[in-house]
Amino acid sequence: MEETLTQLFAFIKEIDKEKLIGRQTYLTDGMRKENDAEHAWHMAVMVLLFSEFANEKIDVLRTISMLLIHDIVEIDAGDTYAYDEEAKKTQKEREQKAADRIFGLLPKNRGTFLMELWKEFEAGETPEAKFARTMDNLQPLFLNACTEGKAWMEHGVSLDQILKRNDRTAEGSEVLWNYAKKHWIEPNLEKGRIQRGKDL
Amino acid sequence: MEETLTQLFAFIKEIDKEKLIGRQTYLTDGMRKENDAEHAWHMAVMVLLFSEFANEKIDVLRTISMLLIHDIVEIDAGDTYAYDEEAKKTQKEREQKAADRIFGLLPKNRGTFLMELWKEFEAGETPEAKFARTMDNLQPLFLNACTEGKAWMEHGVSLDQILKRNDRTAEGSEVLWNYAKKHWIEPNLEKGRIQRGKDL
Repeated sequence: MEETLTQLFAFIKEIDKEKLIGRQTYLTDGMRKENDAEHAWHMAVMVLLFSEFANEKIDVLRTISMLLIHDIVEIDAGDTYAYDEEAKKTQKEREQKAADRIFGLLPKNRGTFLMELWKEFEAGETPEAKFARTMDNLQPLFLNACTEGKAWMEHGVSLDQILKRNDRTAEGSEVLWNYAKKHWIEPNLEKGRIQRGKDL
Repeated sequence: MEETLTQLFAFIKEIDKEKLIGRQTYLTDGMRKENDAEHAWHMAVMVLLFSEFANEKIDVLRTISMLLIHDIVEIDAGDTYAYDEEAKKTQKEREQKAADRIFGLLPKNRGTFLMELWKEFEAGETPEAKFARTMDNLQPLFLNACTEGKAWMEHGVSLDQILKRNDRTAEGSEVLWNYAKKHWIEPNLEKGRIQRGKDL
């Protein structure tokens, strides 16, 4: 048991680095950007409160667990910005390698447990993974809306990009996606904080 | 439903401030201190991996939920350092007022749900609350051990203070408390990073 605990705490020490992985989204005060650990925490609380808006019934613990661990791979692979098409080409390979190393620090049964959760999230096929991915898309959208589109404007993000990024967001929750379009996307498009694509 | 969602997102926006509540514990790289949101995330992952070491069988979702929300009151009440005896005198009152205001932002059923979770954590009587409090004590101990006692030394923390702070840590998990004593406390006492109390 002593050895199991030592392996577990080596993992807990390693993932502390997730607090240093910066994202592109500003906190609601607009003063600094958030990191992966803060992002994961915020979404986990959202699942606690929003699970009833999922299209299909979800296992709340499984959904929260996925969100808590899904960005751990970024400790090695870095955060790939949603609208960075170049970086996204190598993202899958970089993240699989990271998952092998980091989940590999754990005792075998727990390493497998987290690896499976992570793969389920990535595949996005189960009701839990669909809802988790909806949270993962909506949380930064919401922070962007709260900061008057600060990150959108800095990157010159267009509606096309947002809609492409969110092409499966409604699969987790139509109710939440419709709310986001109405309250976060449309008003910021009106105000010119989100750019209109060429063909719109 | 529109109104319910607007209330829920007002709460999600409000708790974003938890990312700005600083704690006294350094991250494992020793470069900066962690904040409440990072702390909550770290402990939630710990519960996923350590639940079998609880003295009594615990409901993992309930335990994680408690840890995710238990520091939200610090948005108004601030972080009370474990070894600041003056601040601790007014802590309870400050935190209750904060809970009333912040959980009061939510639709009634969800506000009640989070208030009850928070009170259960504070009371520390159920198996879930006991284990959650064990995590809340062990996570900063572990970070302190990972940084060669940096925060302990800055504050001149003594063994008496650590043992007093941890007087109920074994109630959640004897196994984990024994591990912490052996691997984190005793070696740092030996090395003079934790001060010996007068009568030791």
